[in-house]
Amino acid sequence: MRMSQLFTRTSKETCCDDVSRNAQFLTRAGFVDKLMAGVYSYLPLGLRVLNHIEGIIREEMNALGAQEILMPALQPKELWDQTKRWETVDVLFRFKGRGDRELTLGPTHEEVVTPLVTRFVRSYRDLPVAAYQIQTKFRNEARAKSGVLRGREFRMKDLYSFHASQDDLDQFYERAVGAYQNVFSRCGLGHQTLLTYASGGVFSKFSHEFQTLTPYGEDTVYRVPGRDVAINKEIVHEEGVLKDVANGKAIEDLEEVKAIEVGNIFKLSTRFTDAFSYQTPIIMH
Amino acid sequence: MRMSQLFTRTSKETCCDDVSRNAQFLTRAGFVDKLMAGVYSYLPLGLRVLNHIEGIIREEMNALGAQEILMPALQPKELWDQTKRWETVDVLFRFKGRGDRELTLGPTHEEVVTPLVTRFVRSYRDLPVAAYQIQTKFRNEARAKSGVLRGREFRMKDLYSFHASQDDLDQFYERAVGAYQNVFSRCGLGHQTLLTYASGGVFSKFSHEFQTLTPYGEDTVYRVPGRDVAINKEIVHEEGVLKDVANGKAIEDLEEVKAIEVGNIFKLSTRFTDAFSYQTPIIMH
Repeated sequence: MRMSQLFTRTSKETCCDDVSRNAQFLTRAGFVDKLMAGVYSYLPLGLRVLNHIEGIIREEMNALGAQEILMPALQPKELWDQTKRWETVDVLFRFKGRGDRELTLGPTHEEVVTPLVTRFVRSYRDLPVAAYQIQTKFRNEARAKSGVLRGREFRMKDLYSFHASQDDLDQFYERAVGAYQNVFSRCGLGHQTLLTYASGGVFSKFSHEFQTLTPYGEDTVYRVPGRDVAINKEIVHEEGVLKDVANGKAIEDLEEVKAIEVGNIFKLSTRFTDAFSYQTPIIMH
Repeated sequence: MRMSQLFTRTSKETCCDDVSRNAQFLTRAGFVDKLMAGVYSYLPLGLRVLNHIEGIIREEMNALGAQEILMPALQPKELWDQTKRWETVDVLFRFKGRGDRELTLGPTHEEVVTPLVTRFVRSYRDLPVAAYQIQTKFRNEARAKSGVLRGREFRMKDLYSFHASQDDLDQFYERAVGAYQNVFSRCGLGHQTLLTYASGGVFSKFSHEFQTLTPYGEDTVYRVPGRDVAINKEIVHEEGVLKDVANGKAIEDLEEVKAIEVGNIFKLSTRFTDAFSYQTPIIMH
């Protein structure tokens, strides 16, 4: 289609009440349109970019051997009760449908994918399984002032894998790190995106965030000199972290930078399969 | 990908509590998985079919000159107050987000697309504009027993066009009828899908539904002999209808059949542009 036929147009005015620079620029260029805080329409040019990014992600996920599915946003409270997250996840929208059934809109999909995939796994021979989706997430965020970077409704790729052993999980995890790095590299963010060590919860020493450098980031990370590796501020003072990740360098030797979390992977062990009383696999997000 | 690598499998068991045959077959074949009434996950094979159908629709919409966008599901109550539909549309999910803001999930998008498109239209010279999306809709349906045919969450293509004159609207409307017929024809439903005259509300004599013949349909239509044209039962007894649509044949000469509504187009005139105090165009869905 020709630019001259586009129904959108550029504007010299700074967008309404949006304080974030990404929203201001994308709105002025006619890529997105703000409906309310954290909720945007994608206009023809913005949708082209979104589709292009999704295409890159899809190729890298398929190359990992992951299978694409599409799970619903609407989810019943019962599933979230089983994982004990109905009360604890503070970004859940909560409301009632017909028959007074309590519902939420998925901010993430462990509660749906775990019973779904395990239903098809009859034995260890059926593992590993990796399934992903590119789907719309809903989060009732307290603050939504970062434009398209922290939306209340936003497109997300989520990948879940199921393994018969910790070894198999560990190997897949390393390959997944590579797949994410390929995605950021192909999006032109390769050298600005740091593999960042963050809290691993109770199941593993670390999780890994992909943090893209920008002064407008909400996160603070400590970059290891000469490497595309960093440590999230939230764990940098924990014992052993600098030794493990930064060859024992002191915190003063690292560079403190602002960054945006653009991806996150972690080893969930049997947290979710246990919640749904399934014996076999280890699950990873 | 090879079938042998699919994580899903076929099943001989009839699906759980689903009474609809489409859900039973699609579940047994591993195409979809039911999360709750009217809410399904699309598994790899089901998603392939969905993507293929979306591709056909996208080509036909682009050929019409419509521009693809992606609007949000989350919508504020204020927009629905302006069109006086907050209280009257009975399938709205209603709930509150941060700051006690009243929200719904779009069952349709006139409330979003009208202010969005008209913001870019400065004069008649900018018209016509046609915008469409392929997006997830949410409807709090009282009954959701028809499997994927009447979902509480489902993928829908919605097209909205804006015109400077009734003439221009009428011409586009005819071309849109052709585009929909192309879609159904390319999906293999051409000869089973009847252009069906239905109520046009207060703005036009008729609207048009596309009704696909099946004994499992929820609608009853009267087919004009020898033509892929029908009249919806809801208007067949209205004065002048048989004369206008069926060459004056009697109702006994028409064939009463069950069908499923697979599409619907209508002329909305200035119903929505008036609601948003916009003077110029005529809008069509």
